[in-house]
Amino acid sequence: MSDAYITLGASATKSEVHKAIKNQDKGVFPGAFCKLCEDAAGDKNYCSVMHADGAGTKSSLAYIYYRETGDMSVFGGIAQDSTVMNLDDLLCVGITDGFIMSNTIGRNAHRISGEIISTVIEGYSSFVEKMRSFGVNITMSGGETADVGDLVSTLIVDSTFFARIPKAKVIDCANIKPGNVILALASYGKATYENEYNSGISSNGLTGARHLVLSGVYRDKYPESFSSTIEQGKAYSGKYLLTDKLEGTDITVGKALLSPTRTYAPILKELLDNPQSNISGLIHCTGGAQAKCKNFGNGLRYVKDNLFDTPPLFRLIAENSNIGEKEMYNVFNMGHRMEIYCDEKTAKLASEIASKYNVDSRVIGYVEKSADQNNSVIIKKDGKEFIY
Amino acid sequence: MSDAYITLGASATKSEVHKAIKNQDKGVFPGAFCKLCEDAAGDKNYCSVMHADGAGTKSSLAYIYYRETGDMSVFGGIAQDSTVMNLDDLLCVGITDGFIMSNTIGRNAHRISGEIISTVIEGYSSFVEKMRSFGVNITMSGGETADVGDLVSTLIVDSTFFARIPKAKVIDCANIKPGNVILALASYGKATYENEYNSGISSNGLTGARHLVLSGVYRDKYPESFSSTIEQGKAYSGKYLLTDKLEGTDITVGKALLSPTRTYAPILKELLDNPQSNISGLIHCTGGAQAKCKNFGNGLRYVKDNLFDTPPLFRLIAENSNIGEKEMYNVFNMGHRMEIYCDEKTAKLASEIASKYNVDSRVIGYVEKSADQNNSVIIKKDGKEFIY
Repeated sequence: MSDAYITLGASATKSEVHKAIKNQDKGVFPGAFCKLCEDAAGDKNYCSVMHADGAGTKSSLAYIYYRETGDMSVFGGIAQDSTVMNLDDLLCVGITDGFIMSNTIGRNAHRISGEIISTVIEGYSSFVEKMRSFGVNITMSGGETADVGDLVSTLIVDSTFFARIPKAKVIDCANIKPGNVILALASYGKATYENEYNSGISSNGLTGARHLVLSGVYRDKYPESFSSTIEQGKAYSGKYLLTDKLEGTDITVGKALLSPTRTYAPILKELLDNPQSNISGLIHCTGGAQAKCKNFGNGLRYVKDNLFDTPPLFRLIAENSNIGEKEMYNVFNMGHRMEIYCDEKTAKLASEIASKYNVDSRVIGYVEKSADQNNSVIIKKDGKEFIY
Repeated sequence: MSDAYITLGASATKSEVHKAIKNQDKGVFPGAFCKLCEDAAGDKNYCSVMHADGAGTKSSLAYIYYRETGDMSVFGGIAQDSTVMNLDDLLCVGITDGFIMSNTIGRNAHRISGEIISTVIEGYSSFVEKMRSFGVNITMSGGETADVGDLVSTLIVDSTFFARIPKAKVIDCANIKPGNVILALASYGKATYENEYNSGISSNGLTGARHLVLSGVYRDKYPESFSSTIEQGKAYSGKYLLTDKLEGTDITVGKALLSPTRTYAPILKELLDNPQSNISGLIHCTGGAQAKCKNFGNGLRYVKDNLFDTPPLFRLIAENSNIGEKEMYNVFNMGHRMEIYCDEKTAKLASEIASKYNVDSRVIGYVEKSADQNNSVIIKKDGKEFIY
């Protein structure tokens, strides 16, 4: 992998971190998408999960967008990002209801006002309310807002989820097997439960995307929005203004980069509640993106030969960067962020449900036995092949 | 209140934040120290709590200490800080066992290595193991380490706890009443379960303490360790080096500022398990410090007229700052960080238990009816009176 992305201070695969935690207990279902623990309420038939994630550096973008346009509402989207990065991970172990959420906000109080904090908190509330209308219930337990200006230059928005699930209902990615098809749910477009076009960017790869796409005018105006450790000339090295139109869409580049992370909860709730569904695994293509599946299952080769056309924002990022195509698929979801590993009948059912919510889906590939014990991922696109 | 502290970018009372969340549901026991929700497992006799906190800007100090001395072990103490800020809050609603913890680390990967992350994670593990030996069980559910160099200049270490408790066992600060005595547990000294002298600083007021006490040499050497929004000349405006001896102790100023936050879990576990104990309320003197109790109970006047002598580190901070004595008590715990509101018999029992663990305790005051419906706190010390 090239270091185009790493020089910006982010690592797509976090190998260092995985090394640091490699001795930790793997939980009750060691092959599952999230770590499941014995039940907090002591029920032998249940397990519990506690899960943390956040909006990452997307909040830095919300900050400059707000400073440039005066539009504070984008901070509400950051709350959605922080929520969905957890919620959709937990969907992947089969949990679709009964969540408790706690949120942590760290701010530089000289730059981030109480009004902005209110907007973030209202963002949590309104997303939670929307999910409730789909039977996906999230209780907000409160949280912590800390003034940590000596650590955080603008705003960091994280959240943590707790949930329980009967062991018999757990979706365990260890069950992904040769013969499974991979049904992908699109990350872009406009779902029935979204207010506007979603670029599909989610909350991964934002450090790279911001710096590669946005113009140097922001470098001089907002030095607080990026790390002083970024190599000279790499911060905001692109050519676009936040207010430039994103070709192929009716939104601006700024709004596209800030598209709140789409949740698949309404779709997966309906699918998992359907007794006809027969799912081997669910994978949320976050860190590691299209190669993330490599971490799950045993002795498998993931063949992805029918991906969605690359959506406009990802095309823009690729065209304006030195990130090779292989690395693009390893950092950005490139069109779908949720994969359902299942039989063809279940794929058809899932596809029908997704279409009701106006979310595109397609069988983008399949699983076969690998030549050895190791997993691999092969992406075939436009006559090229990339192996991970 | 003077703005000595606020100009450094931190707010001791967070009135802005309280305003932002004032419309949120207060939970099952609205007067309790932490927000308690209906039980996650659906048991009507139980309630659940999810709680978030972190080490705050203390990690910035660990960073410069490590850079100056090469001693990486201080990052383990930061994990303890992040844990105890949650654990001891939850003790205050009466929970002493069956915790699940998730941790979130945000780092600038250019400055914070994988080895440092490992040290933080090992710090969590070893503290959890120590607590287990006292019957205080914490399950580590995992967590998230994010490379967010565009937000975080060094390292931010947060954690979130989940726990359940029978409603009948909840300690509800709404029950604090006139006639209660206030038994305080010392924040400083060396408990039997600590490895060295603890300054008592905990994880509150560290932004102020660092800048007021430490020398300007760190300002020039480590600009990444403080906010660029701090007023010219206010960053590291003190006269001490990290390696200077702290008068009245056998440790350095650096080590004293980095003393891992003391937990009171072994003591409170034993006290709460004792059928003789009769506790009205427990207050963890964190944000707001000695005036924190004002937020709890109804129509009460908290009289604190027999406080511990101010421990050495707090004396040093006071002597080297423009923070008035009244504000000192509102930012720093000044000698005790846990208050037991109870009858005299329970105070005696608690005191006996604390002394077994070599933690000093004393009745520092009492509760009486206030003249009106509002709560107030009065501190009487050395002939002076401070009213909050």
